[in-house]
Amino acid sequence: MSDLDYAAVAAALDAEDPLGPVRARFVGTETSLVYFDGNSLGRPLRSTGARLDAFVREEWGGRLIRAWDESWMALPYALGDELGRVVLGAAPGQTIVGDSTTVLLYKLVRAAFDAQVRADPQRVELVIDRDNFPTDRFVVEGIAAERGGRIRWIDADPARGVDETALCAVLGPQTAVVVLSHVAYRSGFRADGAGLTRAAHEAGAVTLWDLCHSAGAVPVELDAWGADLAVGCTYKYLGGGPGSPAFAYVAQRHQEALTQPIQGWMGAADVFAMGPTYAPGAGMRRFVSGTPPVLAMLPLQESLAVIAEAGVSAIRDKSIALTEFAVRIADDLLAPLGVTVSSPRDPDERGGHVTLSHPAMRAVTARLWAQDVIPDYREPEGLRVGLAPLSTSFAELERGMRAIADALRAEGAVGR
Amino acid sequence: MSDLDYAAVAAALDAEDPLGPVRARFVGTETSLVYFDGNSLGRPLRSTGARLDAFVREEWGGRLIRAWDESWMALPYALGDELGRVVLGAAPGQTIVGDSTTVLLYKLVRAAFDAQVRADPQRVELVIDRDNFPTDRFVVEGIAAERGGRIRWIDADPARGVDETALCAVLGPQTAVVVLSHVAYRSGFRADGAGLTRAAHEAGAVTLWDLCHSAGAVPVELDAWGADLAVGCTYKYLGGGPGSPAFAYVAQRHQEALTQPIQGWMGAADVFAMGPTYAPGAGMRRFVSGTPPVLAMLPLQESLAVIAEAGVSAIRDKSIALTEFAVRIADDLLAPLGVTVSSPRDPDERGGHVTLSHPAMRAVTARLWAQDVIPDYREPEGLRVGLAPLSTSFAELERGMRAIADALRAEGAVGR
Repeated sequence: MSDLDYAAVAAALDAEDPLGPVRARFVGTETSLVYFDGNSLGRPLRSTGARLDAFVREEWGGRLIRAWDESWMALPYALGDELGRVVLGAAPGQTIVGDSTTVLLYKLVRAAFDAQVRADPQRVELVIDRDNFPTDRFVVEGIAAERGGRIRWIDADPARGVDETALCAVLGPQTAVVVLSHVAYRSGFRADGAGLTRAAHEAGAVTLWDLCHSAGAVPVELDAWGADLAVGCTYKYLGGGPGSPAFAYVAQRHQEALTQPIQGWMGAADVFAMGPTYAPGAGMRRFVSGTPPVLAMLPLQESLAVIAEAGVSAIRDKSIALTEFAVRIADDLLAPLGVTVSSPRDPDERGGHVTLSHPAMRAVTARLWAQDVIPDYREPEGLRVGLAPLSTSFAELERGMRAIADALRAEGAVGR
Repeated sequence: MSDLDYAAVAAALDAEDPLGPVRARFVGTETSLVYFDGNSLGRPLRSTGARLDAFVREEWGGRLIRAWDESWMALPYALGDELGRVVLGAAPGQTIVGDSTTVLLYKLVRAAFDAQVRADPQRVELVIDRDNFPTDRFVVEGIAAERGGRIRWIDADPARGVDETALCAVLGPQTAVVVLSHVAYRSGFRADGAGLTRAAHEAGAVTLWDLCHSAGAVPVELDAWGADLAVGCTYKYLGGGPGSPAFAYVAQRHQEALTQPIQGWMGAADVFAMGPTYAPGAGMRRFVSGTPPVLAMLPLQESLAVIAEAGVSAIRDKSIALTEFAVRIADDLLAPLGVTVSSPRDPDERGGHVTLSHPAMRAVTARLWAQDVIPDYREPEGLRVGLAPLSTSFAELERGMRAIADALRAEGAVGR
């Protein structure tokens, strides 16, 4: 197919895209810039700036300290519940928003590991795959060292991710906690949430799902999976803005048995009792530490309303259509230049981004940025085409893929 | 003095106040509302809403992921250095902004305690006063329990705070870390930063200063004190907004020897190497864990510019003038109704708020809120008159004090 044909296909796909009109609600979508990094930092909604401005004048400036009682104290729980309902398949009372993904990982892995060891002193292994996101590995590494645990590495095919065979090879009566990413940050492999959770449970282990690269793009059904714990960031597909607070999920059945180590006043049973000793709060309160990051939660609140309106199912359909189109163009235009699609070819095994590998990709990424085509680069050799279903159009995708081909040629990649 | 005389004095004090014109830059100062809680949540600047709106459209929406390289990655350090320069008396390279106060307390107390025990296994005591802020006590309590430490309580006069006599009574060769508040959240007592630090050092202990209730209202000179560690929130006198990120200070001489337990990718030596194991970064980087809360740091950036313009010395002068005026009116109008000034009478021993005690104060606070006079209440019996030097006027203070007298009378407090 020629370049012109792809442009026509893209136009046709955009015309029939039920989510097409949503794109115009995001800042910058009227420009020619190609944004392939919604999997790293989502574009803001046009409504968000005005919302923040109004918040400062009316709520912070007008209600002042009174707003803590009126709504702010409840916000980590209310926004968590809404995130649970719209995105995570989690019934109310199991999700909170706050801290960073790293801090929440630390709290929940510590809580789960300590509880497992208390119940059975031989359960000292923390299971994680070598290709999991660095912060997940680093947190697990730190906890293993400080709590007398042992890391058991899953040896998965790095071009794919963790499947049941790879996981079961390391599970056993010594397994305490299994830390898994739902969608792998490099390859985009989508793990089987229900299947891996079941496998871990059969070995008596507790699971923690990292949803950073899936929440908002790929359906998540924590309650249906029988999941134990989950964390994720909100600045990727969830559109919370740079460094927005993370979320944590703890299945109701575990909440009372778990205690996390960062004992703060906002996690205490009676916050304003200011009592002599710490007593953890009921439900999700005990997983909170410091003062809720109110201002920083507002863009997520805006974005979540748009995600709810669109529906995760329609978002997933669009995500698959986008990644399928990307793979098709890659096969046609980029494979002859030596590019490999490093993401799974089966859309059922793929998240919302497509990774394209070539030795020149670091240089290609720099070249693209200079011309307002913005993917990102991950070692080794990977250019990630991150496709945000609500704000990426097929035409934008098509233009970007052609720009990648041009940049590869400019870097001396040789066509066959 | 009659009520009318106080109004005239307030008008005269406002007229000659060099910081008087700054008040108009804050949202809501044109209304009749009396805000006595700038020590809990500072008022926003009028410029902040527009700044956030512009940030969303231009920086987040326009620069997108590129802004991480352009400025966001450096923001925790740049803003920390500015905070160090303007407010904390800290040379560059020792202060970061991020996380919550509770999380930073956990990281630094853990790091310091572990280092002390490594150097000398008998140093297992964590020293803190019974009247310190709950989150400080709860964090210390949790760390003592999980690390095999022991809490040694300082028995200070709760109407004042920790002085050298009270501290030295518990220091010894077993002391690992001393956690102190610079200004006590209840009484407003200002501790002797240099003196207590020196006393702790003479016993071989490491100090951690909680600056939540002093930073931005009271001069802090961390480097000059020879301080080791400090943390603080930024939503009180520093004006960062509800739940804004906290700050942490680690004296340069300690940085290399300390490692904190929440090992995240943003604290690693090479953030994007995504390497197999965690190696802590140089300098303050190792105290960072997750992705910096960029959006949430912006109001602090705005506010810090205004604080720098005013200067901490002028701010302290105004703060003393405000609290002196509050004490004077309290003695004259409120003492006859049975109110006690629970804050130190010597301004040198007092921070930026004045606590007024009376059995009816909980009811008085509720009554005042209903008429747009906003102090806060802290157990037991304490109404806090928090005076933000940049946004509180003497006239506002005078109106509020009269409202307290009226509310006390309405609650049946009997004049002599």
